[in-house]
Amino acid sequence: MAVPFITEVKRTHTCGQLTKANIGEEVVLFGWVQNRRDHGGAVFIDLRDREGLTQVVFEPDIAKEAHELAGQLRLEYCIGIKGKVVSRGAQVNPKLKTGEIEIKASDLTIFNRSEPTPFLVEDNVDTAEEKRLAYRFLDLRRRPLQQTLMTRSKMNAITRSYMVDNRFLELETPFMGKYTPGGARNFLVPSRLNPGKFYALAESPQLYKQLFMVAGFDRYFQIVKCFRDEDLRLDRQPEFTQIDVEMSFVTQDDIFSIIEGLLKRLWGEVLGIDIPTPFMRMNFDESMAKYGNDKPDLRFGLEHIVLTDLIRQHGAAGGVPMIWEAVEQGGIVKAMVLPADKPMSRAESDKLEEFAKQNGAKGLARAKVAEGGEWTQSPLSKTITPALRQAINQACNAKTGDLILFQFGRESLVHTVMANLRVHVAKKLGLIPEYGSGGVWKFLWVVNPPLFEYDEETKTWAAAHHAFTRPHDEDVEYLLTDPGRVKCHRYDVVLNGFEIGGGSIRLHDPKVQAEVFKALGISDEEAKTKFGFLLDALKFGAPPHGGIALGMDRLVMLLTGAESLRDVIPFPKTKMGTDLMTGAPGDVDDRQLREVHVRPVPLPQK
Amino acid sequence: MAVPFITEVKRTHTCGQLTKANIGEEVVLFGWVQNRRDHGGAVFIDLRDREGLTQVVFEPDIAKEAHELAGQLRLEYCIGIKGKVVSRGAQVNPKLKTGEIEIKASDLTIFNRSEPTPFLVEDNVDTAEEKRLAYRFLDLRRRPLQQTLMTRSKMNAITRSYMVDNRFLELETPFMGKYTPGGARNFLVPSRLNPGKFYALAESPQLYKQLFMVAGFDRYFQIVKCFRDEDLRLDRQPEFTQIDVEMSFVTQDDIFSIIEGLLKRLWGEVLGIDIPTPFMRMNFDESMAKYGNDKPDLRFGLEHIVLTDLIRQHGAAGGVPMIWEAVEQGGIVKAMVLPADKPMSRAESDKLEEFAKQNGAKGLARAKVAEGGEWTQSPLSKTITPALRQAINQACNAKTGDLILFQFGRESLVHTVMANLRVHVAKKLGLIPEYGSGGVWKFLWVVNPPLFEYDEETKTWAAAHHAFTRPHDEDVEYLLTDPGRVKCHRYDVVLNGFEIGGGSIRLHDPKVQAEVFKALGISDEEAKTKFGFLLDALKFGAPPHGGIALGMDRLVMLLTGAESLRDVIPFPKTKMGTDLMTGAPGDVDDRQLREVHVRPVPLPQK
Repeated sequence: MAVPFITEVKRTHTCGQLTKANIGEEVVLFGWVQNRRDHGGAVFIDLRDREGLTQVVFEPDIAKEAHELAGQLRLEYCIGIKGKVVSRGAQVNPKLKTGEIEIKASDLTIFNRSEPTPFLVEDNVDTAEEKRLAYRFLDLRRRPLQQTLMTRSKMNAITRSYMVDNRFLELETPFMGKYTPGGARNFLVPSRLNPGKFYALAESPQLYKQLFMVAGFDRYFQIVKCFRDEDLRLDRQPEFTQIDVEMSFVTQDDIFSIIEGLLKRLWGEVLGIDIPTPFMRMNFDESMAKYGNDKPDLRFGLEHIVLTDLIRQHGAAGGVPMIWEAVEQGGIVKAMVLPADKPMSRAESDKLEEFAKQNGAKGLARAKVAEGGEWTQSPLSKTITPALRQAINQACNAKTGDLILFQFGRESLVHTVMANLRVHVAKKLGLIPEYGSGGVWKFLWVVNPPLFEYDEETKTWAAAHHAFTRPHDEDVEYLLTDPGRVKCHRYDVVLNGFEIGGGSIRLHDPKVQAEVFKALGISDEEAKTKFGFLLDALKFGAPPHGGIALGMDRLVMLLTGAESLRDVIPFPKTKMGTDLMTGAPGDVDDRQLREVHVRPVPLPQK
Repeated sequence: MAVPFITEVKRTHTCGQLTKANIGEEVVLFGWVQNRRDHGGAVFIDLRDREGLTQVVFEPDIAKEAHELAGQLRLEYCIGIKGKVVSRGAQVNPKLKTGEIEIKASDLTIFNRSEPTPFLVEDNVDTAEEKRLAYRFLDLRRRPLQQTLMTRSKMNAITRSYMVDNRFLELETPFMGKYTPGGARNFLVPSRLNPGKFYALAESPQLYKQLFMVAGFDRYFQIVKCFRDEDLRLDRQPEFTQIDVEMSFVTQDDIFSIIEGLLKRLWGEVLGIDIPTPFMRMNFDESMAKYGNDKPDLRFGLEHIVLTDLIRQHGAAGGVPMIWEAVEQGGIVKAMVLPADKPMSRAESDKLEEFAKQNGAKGLARAKVAEGGEWTQSPLSKTITPALRQAINQACNAKTGDLILFQFGRESLVHTVMANLRVHVAKKLGLIPEYGSGGVWKFLWVVNPPLFEYDEETKTWAAAHHAFTRPHDEDVEYLLTDPGRVKCHRYDVVLNGFEIGGGSIRLHDPKVQAEVFKALGISDEEAKTKFGFLLDALKFGAPPHGGIALGMDRLVMLLTGAESLRDVIPFPKTKMGTDLMTGAPGDVDDRQLREVHVRPVPLPQK
């Protein structure tokens, strides 16, 4: 007489729950066979569910029928068992929460059998990622992925409860919107009901969330998918998730304190770590000067030193003609000091030059500081004047045995090379781990960047972020006369070298908006085409407002220590935008395409 | 010296918060000018935010500067005020929560002015919907829409907290998936990286949520957007939201009790109404017989009576040749009784016939029951035998003065006409209101429908819902021999005549799955193309599982009493799938289209 599992006999516990406090209880567990061993007539299995593992033993003299059936069990069979919790005695497994007990099974049912799996369901697999993605439903049985996605679910719950506690409304925005030229590349959706017209999949709810503020909803949030048809790198996905936030009647500081509170709660509830608030703040200009980018990793030093002015002071007379020429041509000069107490071999520092070249540099000038401030191991040492050398040593606070690295030339390239070099060196020197936080969390707001960027190619000013960022009040007068000096209320929140979010206080004053468009060379007509309804909206009493978006996928990676973006997304796509499990994207028959009024462009003959 | 609103002077209260308990307090409010009156030198405004209205008064002798500025105020200006809470004395407005007080303003700032709005921001507008949609950001300032969307946000929060409390994980599924022929019509997205290939926007997370069960996540939920490119009716939207749920190791009853608990919590927390659980259950067959569809409104009677067998017993001799012929040709016969105590005039019952015809009926046979069971006002009365008449009266339990309505013919048409007629009559008789619940909530599970539907056109059996619904164990033997009698574990949850959700216990046994496909005439190859990865997944120890999806938009409509689906969605689309505010869908230039390897099909010359 079989036990009616599921219909009548319900699960009493998960596989991660039972301890010696339960000894003697009759329990029912459901799960998968993680492994199976025969020992002197008894069959042992580890039963797995999302919560853990529990050892189950089938003995012929206790339950003949169940023991016989247990003989058929293989890996990944899905089963139900009933039995009594007993002590493992001396056989305790300290690695498992359930390691003190095992279940002496009286009943067993096989819900479903399993063919041999293409790879073993284990914490660490060395199976090719392609195969894991093709059998994602098996890959997702592995504990690291299960735990990451359970943490992600928890992060969603914490975020939502925090936002609701702070009077934010969760409001939906459409995914199928208007295509706007410029900006990120959008995925397009042909319209069946409107021949020749296309929707764009929303790259973010930006305009809609601003309209929520215009409509008076005051505080909005959403955990929302966004779509960008960019060339995928390993750390990009065509659809990604952001925590999207917008608030009315606020300053930058109000937004910071909401977001700091959220991150504090996430770190507290997920990791049990109390992160100190408020976060440090740094001007954009300082971040560029010291770290070469606007997302510095503050877990270590190795700050850059800007030598441009110093070189300029010494001029041609300084004895470093290549560097001087770079400055004369409008370039910049930066140095970074590798301290003597973490010495690098000549071979190692040669490898740094290779790294710099991979990042686009022409080379990597170096100088080893000897006793008395002399430079060795450096072509520069032959021509440089003692005065300039001394001045550089002093600016760099370089001591005997230190190694100074130099970059000079085009500003953006120097920054990039030096920024990457800084992180590379930090890993080489063991100042930070190869990936993961190493238990150190350095949060930072990067603030007050310029509103505009000068585009060297088109010789025009472009919005550094988007055209609705509010300039500093005191800089508004320079919008048309000196756009480059206009700073704005844009901010990024940075953690350990990753930008985890960014936002701005928006323009809400139609007059200032008009001036910004003028500075950008955007005509009234162009503005109307691109942003018509938002410009309309500003005319009807738009409130002062601002917001931010946090990258949820990146946050999950950082909090769980996952190595890859693909490990925090249940069904990710490859670099080519394909889903190896479903085969998406796929073929569509002509009839279906005709219905949406498009046809494929024939591929060029190869 | 202006008060630095926002930067230093922060909002202290919302506009829906202050009562006489606050009298004497200094407060700061931000909001919009709802209206403005000048009374003997003083300026009165109602200040509005999402929480309510507060009266503010500017008096020249109290604050000269503010009073002067207040003279400039117009409707929908966005402002900040500072002032003291005072009693309104005898001028209490009992309709407002803040009606006992007003603010004597000391300071005023205008954050943004407003042009005259295209329509007034009032609770009731008779503006054309097209204009409201074009200026949706103003329409959304109206209180009914604000309250509906705030309730919706609350429903999201309640749902999520309930699901998380019940150990459900919120897990994401991709929106850009594989196109599968058959099923609902999908929106397509051309792939740039894979020329000639297309993604389909997910019509639901169905397959993915089943894979979560295969992967062992045990309990999944998501409040998720779904996409269907169907011909839009007024109550359809191309993107809509569902509460999506899947559970492992469960019976139908387990799913019912989770969903009943959720609905109980929603009704309790939103409306303060305790809805009794468990809900009533009704077999699909009974629902079709008594109500003509599988989503009966149980707030009233007017049940159908199936007379087919009775007509068959009397045969040609019954004296109603047209009805008898309909039965001989395989049709059915249904009646519905309009009770004598709610009499309808002849003109009114003639209008019922018109209604029936609009619903596809050829006509609407009627019989008024006179003393002694005679029929009047009926062509049927001339030929029907007293025996059949008496039998029908008895079957219908018809009494003197009752009006019997008849439909006969093709089964599906008879059901549809009678179902619509039943609701139509109930509204005419005032048994239910024209729309809204009328304060009565009749929840119901419709269960045990047939697994297959016979398609008269193709003479084949098709899955009544989807091919992964689990048949009743005791019917599995009939899968190939008598498919029509196989019932399945599919269920719909119905409220007041609306299907608010539906789901099923899924097939998890590959052997039964194979038989179902055979019964459906689906070849192995076709199955592999359409469902390959799910079929694969079932081979590796898939657990017994099942789930359900609730229509969130419909739930919000029912709970808020909103009249239209467009009133529960912030930025809805029209019947033509257009967004009147943004102008989506729009034109895309050829370069952009070439990048995704499609070109428009030229429109036919007209």
